[in-house]
Amino acid sequence: MPVITLLTDFGLQDVYVGVMKGIILSLNSHVQIVDITHAIPPQNILAGMVSLESSYPYFPPDTIHLIIVDPTVGTERKAIAIRSHKGYFLAPDNGILTPILQQMEIESVVNLNNPNYWWTPNISNTFHGRDIFASVAGYLSQGIPLEDMGERINSDSLTRYPFPSVIITENQIKGCVQWVDRFGNLITNIPASCLSGKHWWLDIQNHHLYLQNTYSNVEKGKLTAIISSNGYLEIAVNQGNAHHQLQLSWGDTVIVNFTR
Amino acid sequence: MPVITLLTDFGLQDVYVGVMKGIILSLNSHVQIVDITHAIPPQNILAGMVSLESSYPYFPPDTIHLIIVDPTVGTERKAIAIRSHKGYFLAPDNGILTPILQQMEIESVVNLNNPNYWWTPNISNTFHGRDIFASVAGYLSQGIPLEDMGERINSDSLTRYPFPSVIITENQIKGCVQWVDRFGNLITNIPASCLSGKHWWLDIQNHHLYLQNTYSNVEKGKLTAIISSNGYLEIAVNQGNAHHQLQLSWGDTVIVNFTR
Amino acid sequence: MPVITLLTDFGLQDVYVGVMKGIILSLNSHVQIVDITHAIPPQNILAGMVSLESSYPYFPPDTIHLIIVDPTVGTERKAIAIRSHKGYFLAPDNGILTPILQQMEIESVVNLNNPNYWWTPNISNTFHGRDIFASVAGYLSQGIPLEDMGERINSDSLTRYPFPSVIITENQIKGCVQWVDRFGNLITNIPASCLSGKHWWLDIQNHHLYLQNTYSNVEKGKLTAIISSNGYLEIAVNQGNAHHQLQLSWGDTVIVNFTR
Repeated sequence: MPVITLLTDFGLQDVYVGVMKGIILSLNSHVQIVDITHAIPPQNILAGMVSLESSYPYFPPDTIHLIIVDPTVGTERKAIAIRSHKGYFLAPDNGILTPILQQMEIESVVNLNNPNYWWTPNISNTFHGRDIFASVAGYLSQGIPLEDMGERINSDSLTRYPFPSVIITENQIKGCVQWVDRFGNLITNIPASCLSGKHWWLDIQNHHLYLQNTYSNVEKGKLTAIISSNGYLEIAVNQGNAHHQLQLSWGDTVIVNFTR
Repeated sequence: MPVITLLTDFGLQDVYVGVMKGIILSLNSHVQIVDITHAIPPQNILAGMVSLESSYPYFPPDTIHLIIVDPTVGTERKAIAIRSHKGYFLAPDNGILTPILQQMEIESVVNLNNPNYWWTPNISNTFHGRDIFASVAGYLSQGIPLEDMGERINSDSLTRYPFPSVIITENQIKGCVQWVDRFGNLITNIPASCLSGKHWWLDIQNHHLYLQNTYSNVEKGKLTAIISSNGYLEIAVNQGNAHHQLQLSWGDTVIVNFTR
Repeated sequence: MPVITLLTDFGLQDVYVGVMKGIILSLNSHVQIVDITHAIPPQNILAGMVSLESSYPYFPPDTIHLIIVDPTVGTERKAIAIRSHKGYFLAPDNGILTPILQQMEIESVVNLNNPNYWWTPNISNTFHGRDIFASVAGYLSQGIPLEDMGERINSDSLTRYPFPSVIITENQIKGCVQWVDRFGNLITNIPASCLSGKHWWLDIQNHHLYLQNTYSNVEKGKLTAIISSNGYLEIAVNQGNAHHQLQLSWGDTVIVNFTR
């Protein structure tokens, strides 16, 4: 069955997510719809990008991914779809697809401006997740070619959104906390590849942390540094909450020092 | 595949929703089950009605909708099902189906009192979502006629629940906030149809608001009036939170003034 | 379609649950995946056990249940799967499957140590829900025998986790609050079977409570004792919140007194 994923900032208390699913199922009831998360903080494009980057690799290669964080809905920003060997990525053109543009070859980009594939020709100015994206996803899952759904555009014309940068010098790496998960684990933007084969320590509020293999290598309640499940440096507390314990949060600076 | 929707006040921390799905899938594993929302405030029938009204139109016409907000479970209140050209609507008879009764022709109403289609003849007095509604939904999705599942009753006998009224005079419309969404948008009960073709302004705490096409017609952080995605007057803040900014919430009065 | 359930402490804000579903669907897109709950308090094995016990009986007998609360991920604790007449139960060997071990005959237990059925041979030390459990569930749903996925082990070797005990004497039963649900209902660990045919009352903060059939047997806002939908003594407030009203919570003692 075709797989369609939803990644939004819509939350779960309103009917918005359910409505998108209703439209998809009205067009094709033989699909698998998967919620990645709907808890992206409102209008937070970076959080959407991080969630997208950590989830799409685990899905079948022809999956249709909808990523709807859309602060400029109703303006002239385009509704776009990218086709690649990892499937389709549908989103407002506000930079949220930057990880896709950076990480793979793009086969095709389409401006979803063909109203025949919208839910209604009289679309709202507030909910393109319903009026355009869910509808296009439903038609795509029927096997209709993406190129029918609007005019092809050049990927160079798409909006990019900068990830927070990692600054690497001879003595250290300066990054930041890129995600705080439910367990209070602080996941940085420092890739494991920058650390492998080197000797380093992390200096956090008078704690010297060294890389451990597992949370349980340190005592319960103690701080540790670990490689996160998506391949970044992570600061954690064994069976505890590093976010609460350190009072560190989204965007805060993290410095790794290399041993000479 | 048959589509079954769930709209409840059960929340997502308990197993109640999962258990309903287990029963449905025990009866028919070839269905699409969609969560509309489970975050209806406990026992809040009006919030259930608003969510129902804003979601069912987007689903296939033979969808089986379960709407379980059930403060009088275990009493003599009936468990009912309505059949219409927009599908089946199963709910306790406490008024929550009022939007359905108001908005469409009813083909049939059944009191779900045939224990052959319950999960167990010894039903609990606390969880008819499991014991009756999920079970009946599973059988309906198998194609069993609704009329087998209990005795037909007259739709006139069903409980109605009043929506908050909109009072329209020559000079103004007096309505209220009917929903606060995740973004802090204040969605009123004033239909767009009452406003079209007229000149009006909204007076909120010394802000004069006029209708805008999109959130982004005003600067970031500024208040605006807009037509919501489900066709009601909405008060919003561009990329902000009107609920927090105005300290307005569920049920608060909203007045539209007509220009002479 | 095969049914796979997910019961975790992963929450819904992160992508962890979505990623597990991606892996399952990569292996078999013709499955039904059901979320039981992902709101188990982090690392709380007992809460996972209670949720498991209250949900699995309502699912088809060949369901594949994944129960991932995994404080010791990455250590030598095994990843195990139990096969029984109620389906498969996959979990870390930390005691969370104790209700299954207590309540049914075990057909087979397998240590999931065959890397051919893992997502990748280079598994992480932090996310076996993704690297082992989701992957094994996908293969099981394809019909591959469980016994291929690792070596059989004896169920006697599995870790058990004690449920809080119920102490029954001639005059009383001493139990505790085992779950607080979304409605603030206090569900105890005292089985209805211990109470049936006896005369008893519950003494809570100067309230004498007697068993009622329904919430509505008492006035709105009043305390009542009832049998919960999963068969335990429950303390509730009709259309109110017993948890808030009594300031009683998880683990607090509840005493039932028998009348002579």
